[in-house]
Amino acid sequence: MATQEADVLIVGAGLSGLIAARTVLQAGLTPLILEADNRVGGRILTEELGGLPMELGAQWIGDTHHRMFALAAELGVQTYPQYDDGETSYELAGTGVLRGNDFHSRFADELAELEKVLRRLDELAAEVSPATPWTAPHAAEWDAITAGAWYDAQGLSPVARTLLEICTVGILAVPTVEVSFLHLLFTIQTCGVTSELFAESEGGAQTTRFVGGTAEIPNRLATLISDHIVFESPVQLIEHGTDRVTVHCRGGRTATGRRVIVALSPMLAGRIGYDPPLSGYRDQLTQRMPNSAAMKAFFIYDEPFWRADGLNGQLISDIGPARMSNDTCILGDEHGVILLFLEGEQARTHTHWSEEERRAALTAELVRHFGDRAATPLHYLDGEWGSRQWTRGCYNANCGPLVWTTYGPALAEPIGPIHWASTDTATEWSAYMEGAVEAGERAAREVIESLNA
Amino acid sequence: MATQEADVLIVGAGLSGLIAARTVLQAGLTPLILEADNRVGGRILTEELGGLPMELGAQWIGDTHHRMFALAAELGVQTYPQYDDGETSYELAGTGVLRGNDFHSRFADELAELEKVLRRLDELAAEVSPATPWTAPHAAEWDAITAGAWYDAQGLSPVARTLLEICTVGILAVPTVEVSFLHLLFTIQTCGVTSELFAESEGGAQTTRFVGGTAEIPNRLATLISDHIVFESPVQLIEHGTDRVTVHCRGGRTATGRRVIVALSPMLAGRIGYDPPLSGYRDQLTQRMPNSAAMKAFFIYDEPFWRADGLNGQLISDIGPARMSNDTCILGDEHGVILLFLEGEQARTHTHWSEEERRAALTAELVRHFGDRAATPLHYLDGEWGSRQWTRGCYNANCGPLVWTTYGPALAEPIGPIHWASTDTATEWSAYMEGAVEAGERAAREVIESLNA
Repeated sequence: MATQEADVLIVGAGLSGLIAARTVLQAGLTPLILEADNRVGGRILTEELGGLPMELGAQWIGDTHHRMFALAAELGVQTYPQYDDGETSYELAGTGVLRGNDFHSRFADELAELEKVLRRLDELAAEVSPATPWTAPHAAEWDAITAGAWYDAQGLSPVARTLLEICTVGILAVPTVEVSFLHLLFTIQTCGVTSELFAESEGGAQTTRFVGGTAEIPNRLATLISDHIVFESPVQLIEHGTDRVTVHCRGGRTATGRRVIVALSPMLAGRIGYDPPLSGYRDQLTQRMPNSAAMKAFFIYDEPFWRADGLNGQLISDIGPARMSNDTCILGDEHGVILLFLEGEQARTHTHWSEEERRAALTAELVRHFGDRAATPLHYLDGEWGSRQWTRGCYNANCGPLVWTTYGPALAEPIGPIHWASTDTATEWSAYMEGAVEAGERAAREVIESLNA
Repeated sequence: MATQEADVLIVGAGLSGLIAARTVLQAGLTPLILEADNRVGGRILTEELGGLPMELGAQWIGDTHHRMFALAAELGVQTYPQYDDGETSYELAGTGVLRGNDFHSRFADELAELEKVLRRLDELAAEVSPATPWTAPHAAEWDAITAGAWYDAQGLSPVARTLLEICTVGILAVPTVEVSFLHLLFTIQTCGVTSELFAESEGGAQTTRFVGGTAEIPNRLATLISDHIVFESPVQLIEHGTDRVTVHCRGGRTATGRRVIVALSPMLAGRIGYDPPLSGYRDQLTQRMPNSAAMKAFFIYDEPFWRADGLNGQLISDIGPARMSNDTCILGDEHGVILLFLEGEQARTHTHWSEEERRAALTAELVRHFGDRAATPLHYLDGEWGSRQWTRGCYNANCGPLVWTTYGPALAEPIGPIHWASTDTATEWSAYMEGAVEAGERAAREVIESLNA
């Protein structure tokens, strides 16, 4: 097999890699993406169920995701608002199922406690620069404790503490005792404020969806650069020198270029071989940013029957496999679609179950919240990411204690001709599609500037 | 290049892989070790300095390391006791340098506090089975907090807390806030009791050394199986099926067998590709056992001048690059040799310094403790492990919060024809050479039994 040549090699056809390739191409340089899988999109994956597009990966954008709105408009992908009318259903602290209004009046004090902690988190997060979290005045102190330990120290009531955990795990997809408090503050600050992240209603990061499914974005991007992508080419080794890079793929494919952009999560980037080898500093970082654990499960019904009951299709629960759900009906279609989230421990535990067992337990949970009609879905689909060999965990990479303060500067700093993309390296909306676009553009810009220098 | 064939392929010629190969051979089966580097030994590495063998990696064994004593005897490697006469030198809590007797009388109360905590650690560790730490009655609770947080909660005086940190980091080679408390208790229990580990004097794990250097052990083992090792063959991919394994190495070498033993640290094992891919469960474990960070620095003098002053060559300090040192003079040689340990944060910080800067700062530290003669060594050598691409960190793999309780069972459980060795999978003296022997023997036994079944 002949060696392919390009100006800029890009490892990975996720959103970040696709954006990098397009940006490089627009600058008059030739990109070549080497993708391990047989598809583009990475952590964006739309699968059909009952003829409807289900989002097994990234699904929403939020009002401040300016890059994504612009990208969708450019690609001609229409958007529509997330459904958000009616009450959320709660099942917390052994009270049985309560509708939102009842829950809010019964637990007004606890919700006020929670609100106070969220305001405090906002204040502390404001001290953290998302590009350089390790420079925050209290970085050393905050990076030495876990987010869970900080939460535990706030003297919260069990209901407030549980809600705080559920909301946070909904973002991190790992238990809060696995990440440093500095990492939590980084996560908040990269997105703005806690209300953007932890909104009980679907505000913040989850206001808007894409017509035809989120995969329309990477698929249309790929169409624009289709001559510049090769599939089923897992990169095993990157040889690099001044102004010269050769990548070697499983199966024998090789490609050469002047720069390479590695658009993979840090852990996957660490699994590639480099010749000459990278520093211990960079390497030990990639040993310490594991991907988190999330599953999504979809139920399709003949109609969104919960809406007629004044419910918004959202549940928040501390029992049952799922901690949260959403109404994810498809615009222009009359079926009812409920999405259940299994995140962190819930994902880890329930991946060991059979699909039937998961479906049965989730059905029981839905019936408790939305009534007997939930027992008879037309279709069911679930998916988790740890077993997908080219992703190995969603939503993102998290940092335990001392990782940011010890290794943070190694995350996005180029090494010779090697540049780093992926949403995990972003400073705005890291872990989101918005961050993937930022990181892809930033890495492409670094490369373009260095080649024009 | 023709495909090589053997009954049992072994990835890695560290002590665990060598032991596995020898055990397999003794059972009448053919092993083949694929080693990435151009030498055997892995985390055992003896380099010459001024004509004397310096141990950049594993160095000592302790009285309960029965497998290692037996192995040394079998291989004809002589042992000799670690020098341990005289006082330790302390420099803690801003007191300036104090000799051991002065330190012990001045800080008798603090040392009593420390002793009490160590006894408590022994009690708690006794509840943890090193083969199944996740089954301990309080495993969930202990795995949700960091060892550092547990230490902080003991109400210790600054001196006792500092000493506890120094002793623990001397084992883990990462700060105590990076590991779960359950992992600390596992570490203690795998070695017996805290006195085995944390001995201020060189008891416990560090009583005995090897004539000619520790590398005599892997080197002589390798001689016995020299027809069964290939070097410079980094394994990139393991294809596996029922009773059949093919490994593919960088550079094109391939080998086939009926079983494979991966004798690498879990993180490195996770960087190999597997076809079919391994479960998310196993994969996410390997994302969460990063290797720690340690450096050793050796000074050679014309004689061990500190001995005449009644000092044992050991220092314990909370300032300066090194937190601890040892007299590591060579049996039968009259030079003085001091070994300084840089572990955890100390290793991470000082790898960014130039060798001259490190040497100067360490020299200043030695002069404070051992006097002006320490300023004029004949030779200096240091080495760290994060930058070594086939190791990527010493001494061992550590677990942050929730790793043991979530993923522990995946550590050593075979997957089809794939078996796991390396000291990190051992139940007795995990992270030590003793554990490497145990793990190599255990993995070989699994393979032999399955092939004879």
